[in-house]
Amino acid sequence: MSVSATDPTIAIVGASGLVGQEALSILASRGFPATRLTLYGSERSAGQRVEYCGITIEIRQLNRITEQPPEYALLCADADTAKCCRSILSGTSTILIDNSSAYRLDESIPLVIPEVNGSLLECRPRFVANPNCSTIMLLTAISPIHEVFGVRSISVTTYQAVSGAGASGLEELHAQTRARIDDQSQEPRIFPVSCAFDVFEHESAIDPATGFNGEECKMIAESRKIWDEPGLRVLPTCVRVPVERAHAQAIMLELSRETSVEDLQEALRGAPGVRLHAGDRPLTPAQIAGTDDVVVGRIRVDPDDARRAILWVCCDQIRKGAALNALQILDRLEDARSGSLALH
Amino acid sequence: MSVSATDPTIAIVGASGLVGQEALSILASRGFPATRLTLYGSERSAGQRVEYCGITIEIRQLNRITEQPPEYALLCADADTAKCCRSILSGTSTILIDNSSAYRLDESIPLVIPEVNGSLLECRPRFVANPNCSTIMLLTAISPIHEVFGVRSISVTTYQAVSGAGASGLEELHAQTRARIDDQSQEPRIFPVSCAFDVFEHESAIDPATGFNGEECKMIAESRKIWDEPGLRVLPTCVRVPVERAHAQAIMLELSRETSVEDLQEALRGAPGVRLHAGDRPLTPAQIAGTDDVVVGRIRVDPDDARRAILWVCCDQIRKGAALNALQILDRLEDARSGSLALH
Repeated sequence: MSVSATDPTIAIVGASGLVGQEALSILASRGFPATRLTLYGSERSAGQRVEYCGITIEIRQLNRITEQPPEYALLCADADTAKCCRSILSGTSTILIDNSSAYRLDESIPLVIPEVNGSLLECRPRFVANPNCSTIMLLTAISPIHEVFGVRSISVTTYQAVSGAGASGLEELHAQTRARIDDQSQEPRIFPVSCAFDVFEHESAIDPATGFNGEECKMIAESRKIWDEPGLRVLPTCVRVPVERAHAQAIMLELSRETSVEDLQEALRGAPGVRLHAGDRPLTPAQIAGTDDVVVGRIRVDPDDARRAILWVCCDQIRKGAALNALQILDRLEDARSGSLALH
Repeated sequence: MSVSATDPTIAIVGASGLVGQEALSILASRGFPATRLTLYGSERSAGQRVEYCGITIEIRQLNRITEQPPEYALLCADADTAKCCRSILSGTSTILIDNSSAYRLDESIPLVIPEVNGSLLECRPRFVANPNCSTIMLLTAISPIHEVFGVRSISVTTYQAVSGAGASGLEELHAQTRARIDDQSQEPRIFPVSCAFDVFEHESAIDPATGFNGEECKMIAESRKIWDEPGLRVLPTCVRVPVERAHAQAIMLELSRETSVEDLQEALRGAPGVRLHAGDRPLTPAQIAGTDDVVVGRIRVDPDDARRAILWVCCDQIRKGAALNALQILDRLEDARSGSLALH
């Protein structure tokens, strides 16, 4: 892709974090021009220099974003930063795409997985929320099945990589594992227990009313909003595993009508964003880290009830689960602009 | 426990393996006398010396077991060894307790978790099968709930430690993790893929008809046999995780009637072999490794359907999942003998 006047200007807010870095890496692989890109960060990251396609870009302090409001601001930071950006950019025409949980359940804001409900982007909303990584992988994988067989209920159990908690989660896994191998111990800082050679319930706060943790609550509420089915039955159990990057999910579906492994494969084959795992080697999360697709392996149907299916799904939670999904939202918003320009 | 003429004679077959070693460790902690114990192993292990309560015991070659048939033979070896033992001890009065899968589904042989169906031991059968570790932990945890609320269907997803594949599985985890930390790689030998920082479906062979792996097939068939419910609906997904020892399970139950977290706690409190997890620290498998109980944490009820419950369960698969369960079978058989002696 060469430099083009039609490339939009993009600001990445939170450019030094795992998701911001991944967004940069995807833009670089597309050859997106550095001249259309600005990077912003917290006071702590401001002044850091980032290599982008052989050019050095300095991360600016966030309050400077209003000096040259970009066409798109990709928010790869926390909820407070998202709220701040929304406020300081309110008088501009910048479209914000937010990876945080700040506005995901706000009724006035679309929550979008382009492959699932991308049509919400046709009206070019000013603010779009990116769903939680676990929700993105779940719904990208099962929406094609829902269309054909009607999903009545979802039970999902996760195997979530420590990098879902950011770069510091990954550092903690490495440091604690190294310590354990050397017969030392290292106190947990990011997670409630040591993540070396152990698995534990997701570290998000538990809702005292239901006992569901924050990650599980997100999966329930966001799935209902994205499918626009307020009564959708979703029963998640979210667990961290000592994996560096990419999540896995065991998904059990109750369908409205009987299915077969072949029918499910047929529904998923060619579905956008989905890849059917092939080959004899078992599908694992580490194996697909750094790739774009939501990968579906081990499709089974309950031998005693052909309306129950089980899938094993893996997805890079930083890529399709965050940065890539946000950039796909941006792509669809650009398509919508071209479309509306063409109409005039 | 002092040396007593009433202690039975016990032979441990497969004394150098993880399960055999664990059985020895439990017997030692009970003060079981070395004079009543003989150890057997393969040609490879024969001649090895094992420390037991300060005394050195030599592992004998298995064919010597007929020289002095023990009252109980604890088979902690593979299916072929179990078949061989059954054959060579057929003319003796030895009672065999088998940890392998050789006879678990044999209709003439009881498959026993003492807390669940221990009454099958009252007639002192000559051969008793010990269930698979994943079945033991599942049914020990949910049988008390079944009694009160009637379990109509079970979906279970596992997080299984690599030591379930024996000592070599554990060595592979350590070697591969060490290699990965040093930016090296080490080819898998025990598992189909590297187990360092990754999770993967259980390595047992897949049934081409259903797509279920061997571990999942065992959980289905053994649960049906132990509960004596041939139509019981069990949907397992068995996954290995890079944990050294102790398994975890996320168990979703559909019950015959509505329940609550308090009612489920009440059903489990004081149930034999079960401990309710207490405290703020999340329950993890590594945390309970080396302990006896099946530990139940995170009890949740579906807010939209009070007949659906989810449990998070951890259990040392070498202890209660194998060696301890086998010794509890032996204890119950001894109780049955005392009972019948008392009757005469």
